[in-house]
Amino acid sequence: MAGNGPSYSLYYWPGLPGRGEFVRLVLEQAGVDYDDVARRPEARGGGVPAMLSRLREGPGLRPLAPPIIEHGTRTLAQMPNICAWLAARHGLVADDEDVRAEALQLQLTIADLVTEAHDTHHPLGKGAYYEQQQEAAIANAQQFVDARMPKFLRYFEAVVQANDAGGGHHLVGDRLSYVDLSMNHVLHGLTYAFGRALSVYEPQLPGLMALRDHVDALPRLVAYRASSRCIAFNEDGIFRAYPPLNLLPSSQ
Amino acid sequence: MAGNGPSYSLYYWPGLPGRGEFVRLVLEQAGVDYDDVARRPEARGGGVPAMLSRLREGPGLRPLAPPIIEHGTRTLAQMPNICAWLAARHGLVADDEDVRAEALQLQLTIADLVTEAHDTHHPLGKGAYYEQQQEAAIANAQQFVDARMPKFLRYFEAVVQANDAGGGHHLVGDRLSYVDLSMNHVLHGLTYAFGRALSVYEPQLPGLMALRDHVDALPRLVAYRASSRCIAFNEDGIFRAYPPLNLLPSSQ
Repeated sequence: MAGNGPSYSLYYWPGLPGRGEFVRLVLEQAGVDYDDVARRPEARGGGVPAMLSRLREGPGLRPLAPPIIEHGTRTLAQMPNICAWLAARHGLVADDEDVRAEALQLQLTIADLVTEAHDTHHPLGKGAYYEQQQEAAIANAQQFVDARMPKFLRYFEAVVQANDAGGGHHLVGDRLSYVDLSMNHVLHGLTYAFGRALSVYEPQLPGLMALRDHVDALPRLVAYRASSRCIAFNEDGIFRAYPPLNLLPSSQ
Repeated sequence: MAGNGPSYSLYYWPGLPGRGEFVRLVLEQAGVDYDDVARRPEARGGGVPAMLSRLREGPGLRPLAPPIIEHGTRTLAQMPNICAWLAARHGLVADDEDVRAEALQLQLTIADLVTEAHDTHHPLGKGAYYEQQQEAAIANAQQFVDARMPKFLRYFEAVVQANDAGGGHHLVGDRLSYVDLSMNHVLHGLTYAFGRALSVYEPQLPGLMALRDHVDALPRLVAYRASSRCIAFNEDGIFRAYPPLNLLPSSQ
């Protein structure tokens, strides 16, 4: 790292929020400066080539896939792992080891939901385009909005409601954690990709809606989301607004 | 927990190795006694009903899905989280926080591979049987053996080869960790489900094969796998021996 540059370098696909966004939300709420390397122009050492090159070589443990965070000679990959590690450094998770394990349990469950939301548009594999597997995608999306999405959301609703210390808008502990930031982003993603089904389930999710609104109002996140640092949802990302997949639950 | 009983209770589907097996390997190698609750007969408080009941109520943070570990009033879910937590308590991961984050990165990457291996037989969703989605399963399995399985395995091969401290058969650090136990199990699972493709890739994976053999020879695991506590791979689990999915890579 250059002596006077930001202390963190993030490597992620430059054109989509994706799994990188969960890391960005932690960095932004922590108020730390970071270099979003692949968003720099290629002429200034950025772009996709910089990210791909970082996958091939660099200090520390090799990553399989982005997001990757670099801090000095340290390298870490895997979204929940990066978020947990950054959160521990910047007060976005409790010091207590037991609470940290609980936070990680929730973050891994969020990560599972993210993977299932992604796989609705790529059920046959990542190597072929959505348009090449649309029929299978519709079948997958239907079971997602019928069964999986409500199962996950009702679970998180029960968790936020059971967390007496959380003031009704924190999933774990008595204050904001990285898990809340990630949940907020997932709720926006589901609104973008599966808004018709989500509007059916929303009345059953008052705790999650309060959490979403609470995080939305955090001044640092308001500033971030109004800035050019924040990439809007789009059809290269995990959450995609494909009308054929934005299905109502079968029972509706 | 009863005063004189085992200090850990594991809750997992009783008829398959599944994600519970990664937890069992840590418990077995740690040499601790545990109650595999759902494997007890229903008449003695076990079976699937005991597991489902634990999902609905119990002390500690609510889990969404098994495996679940209970220790006193503590409850933890999510396979990588449980393994990391148990390993920290029983010397199966280094004390160093940085090494722990690296181990978790690898364990989460193993978990991703496990999910993708599972999804080959359920690409359209968990709510319908394999037989109802066989055509999509074959398409998914083909891309898995062509692209995803070798990508993951070559990655882990590079990690074990780059770990100079590991004596050629540890993924992280200079001694056995939970990550090695999990990698060993995945390699056996891939042999069971995708043996034809794995035999094509095996010559490129000398480090992983050495790791597999090293773990296979651990006396506690030898004893465990010869015992009735260990459930064999079968067609209810993650790794399933479905001949139509046991495909050669397209290039062969």
